[in-house]
Amino acid sequence: MSQKKIIHVNAFNMNSVGHIHHGMWTHPRDQSHQYNTLDYWINLAKILERGLFDGIFIADIIGYYDVYQGNIDLTLRESIQTPVNDPWLLVSAMAAVTKHLGFGVTATISAETPYTFARKISTLDQLTNGRIGWNIVTGYVDSGARGLGQDGLADHDQRYDRADDFLELSYKLWEGSWEDDAVIADRARRIYTDPAKVHSITHDGPYYRSRGYHMSEPSPQRTPLLFQAGSSGRGQRFAGQHAEGIFINASDPATARASAKKIRQAVADAGRDPHDVKIFVGVAVIPGHTEKEAQEKHAEYLHYASAEGGLAHFSASTGIDFSRYGLDEAIEYGTSNSIQSATQVAQQNQMTRRKLLEQHKLGGRYNTIVGDAAQVADKLEQWIDEGDIDGFNLTRIVVPETYEDFIDIVVPELQNRGRYRTSYTEGALRNKFFGAGNRLPASHGAARWRQRDGSDTSSDQPTHIAA
Amino acid sequence: MSQKKIIHVNAFNMNSVGHIHHGMWTHPRDQSHQYNTLDYWINLAKILERGLFDGIFIADIIGYYDVYQGNIDLTLRESIQTPVNDPWLLVSAMAAVTKHLGFGVTATISAETPYTFARKISTLDQLTNGRIGWNIVTGYVDSGARGLGQDGLADHDQRYDRADDFLELSYKLWEGSWEDDAVIADRARRIYTDPAKVHSITHDGPYYRSRGYHMSEPSPQRTPLLFQAGSSGRGQRFAGQHAEGIFINASDPATARASAKKIRQAVADAGRDPHDVKIFVGVAVIPGHTEKEAQEKHAEYLHYASAEGGLAHFSASTGIDFSRYGLDEAIEYGTSNSIQSATQVAQQNQMTRRKLLEQHKLGGRYNTIVGDAAQVADKLEQWIDEGDIDGFNLTRIVVPETYEDFIDIVVPELQNRGRYRTSYTEGALRNKFFGAGNRLPASHGAARWRQRDGSDTSSDQPTHIAA
Repeated sequence: MSQKKIIHVNAFNMNSVGHIHHGMWTHPRDQSHQYNTLDYWINLAKILERGLFDGIFIADIIGYYDVYQGNIDLTLRESIQTPVNDPWLLVSAMAAVTKHLGFGVTATISAETPYTFARKISTLDQLTNGRIGWNIVTGYVDSGARGLGQDGLADHDQRYDRADDFLELSYKLWEGSWEDDAVIADRARRIYTDPAKVHSITHDGPYYRSRGYHMSEPSPQRTPLLFQAGSSGRGQRFAGQHAEGIFINASDPATARASAKKIRQAVADAGRDPHDVKIFVGVAVIPGHTEKEAQEKHAEYLHYASAEGGLAHFSASTGIDFSRYGLDEAIEYGTSNSIQSATQVAQQNQMTRRKLLEQHKLGGRYNTIVGDAAQVADKLEQWIDEGDIDGFNLTRIVVPETYEDFIDIVVPELQNRGRYRTSYTEGALRNKFFGAGNRLPASHGAARWRQRDGSDTSSDQPTHIAA
Repeated sequence: MSQKKIIHVNAFNMNSVGHIHHGMWTHPRDQSHQYNTLDYWINLAKILERGLFDGIFIADIIGYYDVYQGNIDLTLRESIQTPVNDPWLLVSAMAAVTKHLGFGVTATISAETPYTFARKISTLDQLTNGRIGWNIVTGYVDSGARGLGQDGLADHDQRYDRADDFLELSYKLWEGSWEDDAVIADRARRIYTDPAKVHSITHDGPYYRSRGYHMSEPSPQRTPLLFQAGSSGRGQRFAGQHAEGIFINASDPATARASAKKIRQAVADAGRDPHDVKIFVGVAVIPGHTEKEAQEKHAEYLHYASAEGGLAHFSASTGIDFSRYGLDEAIEYGTSNSIQSATQVAQQNQMTRRKLLEQHKLGGRYNTIVGDAAQVADKLEQWIDEGDIDGFNLTRIVVPETYEDFIDIVVPELQNRGRYRTSYTEGALRNKFFGAGNRLPASHGAARWRQRDGSDTSSDQPTHIAA
C-alpha cells in the first residue's frame, strides 16, 4: 500500500425488528421495535450523517424463514426479519433531514417490473440529488416466490440470467431515453422538454420486453450506484459485469483477500477497471472507551442475544433444519453453492448443533470486533489492508447505540490515522465513492446505451460508439 | 338537508409539472417545475395541513399521451403529465412534517404485484399512523401497457375483473393474515409476535395466486382508504363493491346529483350503506379578496394557459387526434364508454376544434369557480347540497398559490358558515372521513376475510361469519 486507503462505512440495517443479531430487540436500550415509525429512521439518518457514514444500507427479503422446525413460529417469536416492511418508502423522510448520506436499498428482481422500477429509482435519485444505490437481489427464499404466485424460486443461474435481462432493459431506460439537455424548462419559449432529445427504447429480451419512453427525466446518477452480493461463480460473473459495490462475507482478512482477488478479476474480465468496485465486509463492532468497558458491553449484549434465533436464520441460509439434530450430534452441511467446501469445513471442525448455537449467538458469520478505539481501529485497518477490501457494512446490535458508539469512539481514532473522511465529498453517491463524476464510467456495460448523436435508437442494437 | 354537510377538500396533484391546467408552469409564480425536489412537497404538505385539508390526492399515469398529432412532441414540450415520477416515494417526507394530512395515492393494478403492493401499503400506513388512501386505477393508456411489456391495455371490463381479483387477494393479506393482538413485543417473555395469531392465506384467483403470510404486521387502517373514479357501468359496480371515496366529473350540480344517485345505488347493491362513500368533484377555484381581484387573477392565468395542451390531454382521454380537424370543422366524438351520448352532446353544440380549444384552455372538464370568498362559498355549497356530493378535489393552477389562496380566502368563509372543519378529528384517515373507527365497516366485502376465532384459514373460503 503506497497510500492509506480511506475506510468506507455503511450502516447495515433492515426495515424490521431483528436483522443480524437476533434477540437484541429485548435489550432495554434497543429501539428496533420502532422500525415502523418515521422518528426512528429520521433520528438514525441524522446520527449517521453526523458520523460521516457513506450511507445506510437497507437489506430486504421478500418472504420469510420457514426452514427451522419447518414453520415460522420461531421466526415470529424472535422477529427474525419478520415482519419486514418495504425499505424504499423510508428514503424520502431520511433524505429530507440529510444532505450527503447515501441510501443503498435492496430490491428483488422477481418482485419488480423494470419499466416502473426504473421510474422508482429515477424519482428517488432526483429527490435525493443522486444519493441512491440499489442492492440487486435475485430472490432468496421459496416462501417469497410462493407469495408472488410462483411455485418456488427459479433455478439459481436462471435467476441471474433474468437479472441480466432486467438490468439491460433498465440501462436503456436510465441511460438511453432522455439526453442530458432534453429538459430545458424555458418559460419564455414555452418548452419544458425538447422532443428531439427524448428517445423511445425497445427491448425484446429472454425475460422482459418493453417499448416506449422512460417516464422520468434524467436523475443525477441516471443508473443508481449498483450493489450486489453474489458469491457463486455465476454471481461473481454478474457482479463483474454490473456491480460497483460488492458485499462479501469472510472469516478473516486472508479469506477476504482471496474473494477480493476473484471479484476484481471478474470485473477486469468484463472490461472494467478492477478498482471500479468497492468491496465491503459485514462486521459487528462493540467499542468501549476502554477495553474493559467494551468487554463488559459485549458480555451484557450476550445476555440478550438469541442463539436459537441465530441458528434459525442460519437454517434458512443453508436450507437445513438444524432443529432436527441432537445437541451433540455431528452435522454435515453446506450451502447450495458450495456444498463440498462447507461440508469439509464442518467435518474438520466436527460441527454439532451445540457449536452452531454458540457460533450464531451474536452475529453468526459476521465478525465481531470488541475493544477500545485503538484496538478496533487496528482490526479494521488490518481487514482493509490485508483483505484488499474497501470498507464495512456495520451491523446493528443495539440501535442506535451501535452506530453512536462507533461514531463517538471509533471514527475519531480512524480520522487521526488518516483513515476516515473528515468531511463529505460533494456530488452524487457514485462520486463520493469513486471521485470520477456522478455517472457510470464509459467502461461499464450500461454506457453503450447512451445517446451519442441524438438519433432515435428504436431498435434493439446499441448506439454505435466511434472508436 | 336537515344538517349542513361539512365540505371535504383534497388537494389534487401529480408528481409532474403539468397536471390539469396545462401551460401554467410558464407562470412566473408557479413552482411545479420543482416537482422533483423534496422541499417542494414538504412545503406543500405544511401549507395543506395549515389549511386543514383532508388530504393530498396524487394522480398518476403509467405511460404517456401519444394520441394528439400521433406522437409525444406536444406532451413533452408542454410537459402534459410527462415526465411523471412515482407518487408513493413522496409520502414519508410529507408525513414527517404533518400529523393529520391524508395521502390519497394512485397505483395502477397492471403495474403492481399484490403480495408486495400489500406490503407497500402496510408500510406507509404504519409510518403515517393510518393516513394512507389508495386511488385504484386499472390502467389508462396503451403506451403504459407497452412499457410494461404488454401489447396494449386489456379490454375495459377485463381490467375490472383483474382489479377485483387483485383486491380480494389484497384484502386477505391486509385483513386476514395477522390478528390485531398478534404483535406483543414483550421483552421479558421474549415474544415479539405470537405465532398462534398469524395465519397463512391462500389465493387461487382468475388472475392472481398467492400462498403465505403477509410480510407486515397490521397497520392502523389495515386496508387503506379506497378511492376510485370509475364512471362506466362496470366501473360503478366495482366502485360500489370496493370504494370509499369516489371521484366524478360533472358539468353542473344536477349532473353530479344524477351520478351520485347511481353510485350510492351501486354501493347499496353491494350490501353497504349508501353513505359509506364520499363523493368528490374535481374543481378549479380562483378566489380573490374582491370579485375584481379574482377576475383579474383569472385573466392573468389565462395569459399563460395552453389551450393546445388542454386539447392534447383531451385527445388522450378520448382517443381522438383532434389535430386532424380544421379549426371550424364539425367534430363528432365520444369517450369509449359513452360514445352515443357524447356524440349527441357534441352535435347539439356543433363542436369544432376552435370550441374545444376554448373549452380546454384552463382546466377542460373541470369547473372553474372565480369570485370573492362569499361567491366561491356559495358555489361550493350549491355543489354539495344540490349535487349530493361530499367534497372537492381542488386542482392546482399556480402552485402553491392556488392552495394558499383557497386557505386564506375561502376556508375562513366556509368555516364561518359551519361548512369546514376548524380542527382535525383524531384517528386514521378513514375515521376522519366517516367517524366510525379506523377500520373498514363490517358491511364492506373485505371484512369477510377477517380472523374471527384465530383458526388458520389456509383455504380459499371466507371465514364463516355467524348470523
